[in-house]
Formats: sequence, structure tokens, C-alpha cells
Amino acid sequence: MADTGEFGLIARVTARLPGGRACLLGPGDDAAVVAAPDGRVAASTDVLVEGRHFRRDWSSARDVGHRAAAANLADIAAMGAVPTALLVAFCAPPNLDVRWAEELADGLAAEAALVDASVVGGDMSASPTLTIAVTALGDLGGRAPVVRSGARPGDVVAVNGRLGFAAAGYTVLSRGFRTPKLLVEAFRRPEVPYFAGPEAARFGATSMIDISDGLLADLGHIAAASDVVIDVQRELFTVPGQIRDAALALSVNPFDWILGGGDDHALAATFPADVALPAGWVVIGTVSDGPAGVTVDGRPYRGAGGWDHFK
Amino acid sequence: MADTGEFGLIARVTARLPGGRACLLGPGDDAAVVAAPDGRVAASTDVLVEGRHFRRDWSSARDVGHRAAAANLADIAAMGAVPTALLVAFCAPPNLDVRWAEELADGLAAEAALVDASVVGGDMSASPTLTIAVTALGDLGGRAPVVRSGARPGDVVAVNGRLGFAAAGYTVLSRGFRTPKLLVEAFRRPEVPYFAGPEAARFGATSMIDISDGLLADLGHIAAASDVVIDVQRELFTVPGQIRDAALALSVNPFDWILGGGDDHALAATFPADVALPAGWVVIGTVSDGPAGVTVDGRPYRGAGGWDHFK
Repeated sequence: MADTGEFGLIARVTARLPGGRACLLGPGDDAAVVAAPDGRVAASTDVLVEGRHFRRDWSSARDVGHRAAAANLADIAAMGAVPTALLVAFCAPPNLDVRWAEELADGLAAEAALVDASVVGGDMSASPTLTIAVTALGDLGGRAPVVRSGARPGDVVAVNGRLGFAAAGYTVLSRGFRTPKLLVEAFRRPEVPYFAGPEAARFGATSMIDISDGLLADLGHIAAASDVVIDVQRELFTVPGQIRDAALALSVNPFDWILGGGDDHALAATFPADVALPAGWVVIGTVSDGPAGVTVDGRPYRGAGGWDHFK
Repeated sequence: MADTGEFGLIARVTARLPGGRACLLGPGDDAAVVAAPDGRVAASTDVLVEGRHFRRDWSSARDVGHRAAAANLADIAAMGAVPTALLVAFCAPPNLDVRWAEELADGLAAEAALVDASVVGGDMSASPTLTIAVTALGDLGGRAPVVRSGARPGDVVAVNGRLGFAAAGYTVLSRGFRTPKLLVEAFRRPEVPYFAGPEAARFGATSMIDISDGLLADLGHIAAASDVVIDVQRELFTVPGQIRDAALALSVNPFDWILGGGDDHALAATFPADVALPAGWVVIGTVSDGPAGVTVDGRPYRGAGGWDHFK
């Protein structure tokens, strides 16, 4: 990258970034301009650090681009908003191959294109540590944002998207295996139910969150913000065959992955009990009064929970 | 920081971040919500890496916060927009004192407050390299964005804000001195003419840029995007006494700082020749036809120019 230089690299990378529907002014000026028809903009930032959030021997540059975009776009969807744009701060060692940066851009662009969004701007710097900080913007379409504090006693808790797949893939990779491919790929590139977020908002979701730290940990954020008890019932989960088989082979409790694993970027939401849930949502628990917290089958859960990015 | 943990640190830092006028939903949910009354949002990202953009022995955490915010807010102002919000991705070694992160937040918040903006969201991660990626949002107030490509032959070139002060401060520090205080402070905390950006847009600026790479380098971006020649005339500059004295003491050509030094985040703009410029703008050159580029006193300039962040 040192040979190409900052401006050369920016030119090579931005050439690979098509503008999306909401992009009114793309890369190349002091700032981008993005449509915000709602008169408000939802905005979220997530950072990925090599060795902590990804490994170059486990994920291709394109995979990392997909994951970096997905983590941010999922946060926008979890507010009930429609993603419109990404901005990307990219820090890399000067000896990094320019193709890695180009393929990262391809992955970012491809993931954003799934929701008709695009990379509209960014910054680059040399750094000893490969780091990708992404900011996502989104439009609320006239709806109130679906916040974490809206869960009410009597609501049902539902999830949309895969649970435990990325965590299982991580375990597989960390034990030195490269298969089952489905799980490894789930770790490399989450499949986020982006459209389920705004749809849940239209159907009256009372709270919503992107599952990035793990289902129990993220439901814990809803429970704390809403001052409610959330009880998750294991009998409401169907353990997918691939998860069950991999868990058996690796001597892991599959619920450690399903309840504790993050990084699938599924959505969890609460709905009033009388709402007919939109497609793809599966009820997994209930909301009640009591000291704020999460229980599993009515009791504190002793299995693996979320994780702390500083520990 | 490892003792405090990610969520503890986020709680301690966000407690120091008051919401601004445009902040409709602040930190603590999957995304923030920011007012965008114009129906469009200007958005820009800049990243600061320790050892490259700042040194902890030269700048306090609060200084770094001011600089990180200023670099981004200036980009918004240079579009003719009014800054509304910042999002901050913060990566730090686990052994960093939590107070450093708190004081960084104080600096970010104080700089944003100068324009009635605020820090509305962010992310944190452990990393071997202290890194601060900031995204700024802004509102165009119904005006067209002032882009780099609008300069026309016959326009005048004008600047608003300090030139060469930060570069002089950098030279002072890198030679082992701590005074003159004015110059060192200018390096630590730029004084950005934020309000001059939207005002220039209202007065009909045809192009505008935030001077971050150096006056000649940044005018070069305007010249290239507009396909014009920009000529800067040295006789139109008043060399400030502190710059002249420091240049003499350190055996530097003061125009190396004024024309080549970045990081003051002054604004440069072009205006039609018949416009009465708003307060604070100083004409320093003219725009004409010809092969795109920047000249000084009608000739190519052989002194110090901008710099490349990968070299």
C-alpha cells in the first residue's frame, strides 16, 4: 500500500464502490451527501480489529467486508430503519497488499447492495493494526425508532435469523477444522434478516435489538433498559441438525452456541401478545414483571453467555 | 480499561456526553437518531492513529478529542453544512488508563458543543494501536452542497482561518521545544471557522475545501476536480508575527508552513469575482483556464507541499 499511496489507494478502492439509491454525493469530496427523506437519520458505528474480531487466515478480505458491513447494517435494521449508506475508516499496515483493500471494498459494497445501500465515504490511514470502523446510516420511514426500552410485561419475545451458527463456525475454526462449511461460512459472512427489522416496526414491535453479543446478553440489554424479566424457554427452539451434529462432534452443549453465541446478527424483538407476527419470527419466550434480568426456563442460566470486548 | 470492561467503560464515557440540539436518541441503543431537517445528511469520516496523527507525550487526551472532532466537523462545514452529530469508534490498548478515554470524550464533546453538535454514538474495542475514528453528520439547510468541482475561471480564491500555525507548532514540538505556546496549542487544538462554511455557501461560494493536507495540496484537489488553474499570490498573505519569528528562529521558510502545512483546518473557497466576501475571508489568489493545477506567483512551487498519509 505504501507504493500506491493514500490518494492512489483511495482512487482504486472508490472505483469499486457503486453509488446506491440514497447516495446523492459519493466519495471524493469533504463529505458525502445521503438522502434522509424521513427528516431524521439513524446512525451506528462498529469497529473490527484484526486478531480480535477477525483473522486473515480464517476470513478472506471479502468476508471481512461482508461482516463489517453486516454488523452495522444490522444495527440500523434493529431500530426498524432501512439502511441507506456506509462510511468506512480503514487503517492498515503499509505492507498490506492493495488487493486486500480492494477485496474488502468489494465485500462491503456487496453486503450493502443487499439492502440497496452503498459506501458513500471514508478515510484511510497507515497503522500497525488492521482496523475497519464502519458507520451505517438509515431512514426510519416515518416510524418511531424501535428502542431497547419498550418491552412490556405480557409481551412475547421472538427472534428472526440464525442463532449459534457463527459461534459454531468459530469453535470449528478454533479447533483447527475447516468444515462443516455451512457453519464456517456463517462465521465468515452473517446472513442478516435486514428486511425483518422495518417489518417488525410496522407490526408493532415494542423493543428490538441486533444479536451481536449473544442472545442472552442482548436480551439482557432489553431487560435492563425496559426494567422487565425476560424468560427464554428452551423447548421453543428447534436445534438445527448441523448445530446438533457439530455440537455432538465437538462435545459442546448446542445451547451454549444458540444462547451465548454472537455474530449471527439475528434480530430479537418483543411484540404485544395479540400481534400476529410477520414471517420469519419465532417466539422463544415471554416478558414479565420483576427485577430486571434474563432467565432460561424460569431460572438463572449457568451456561455460556455473552462476551466482553475488553476481556 | 480491562478492569472496567467494555460496558463499564461505555457507561463511564457516555455519562460525560451531553446531547445536542439535533440528538433525538443518544448513546445506548443499536443506533442513534439525529435530526436531518433538510431531508439530506452530509456525512464524513476521519481517523486518527497514535504515532501518526497524534502523540500522547505531545497532546493530552482532551487535546486529541478536540482535534479528532475538529477534523471531522471542519469537513462538514466545508460542504456548507451545519454539523449536527458525531459517532466515535475508539480502539485502545487494554492497559490504557480509563481517565484517558474519559478526557478524550470531554474533548470531543467540548469541540462538538462549539457548533451545538454532540457525540450521539460509537463503539469501543481493545486494540494494540490507539485509534479514534470519527464520523460527523451535518445538515445542509436547504442549500446545495459546496463541492470541490465548482471553481470557474475568473473566480477569486479566499481562505478563512489560520494557516501554518499547526505546522509551526508541529515543527516546534519535533525540535524538542514546548514554546511558543500559541503555535504548540494551535497544533494541539485547531481553531476551525465552522460558521464560515455555511455562510460562504449562502454568499455563493462556487467550491470549498477544508485545509487538512496543506493549502497547496488542498487547492490542488479543487483545481483537479474543477479542471482549472489556481494561482496563489504570496503578496496577498500577511505573515503573522509569531509565524515569522518562529520561522526565523528555526530556520524555516514561513511559506513552507503557510502553503504546505495542514491540520489548521482553515477553509479555502472560490467565489465569483463580483461577490462581496463575508467577514473573515481573505483573497489569496485567482482561478483561470489551463491545465489543472496550482501555481504560486504564476509558477510551479518548489517548496514544501502536502503530505501523503501512507508515506
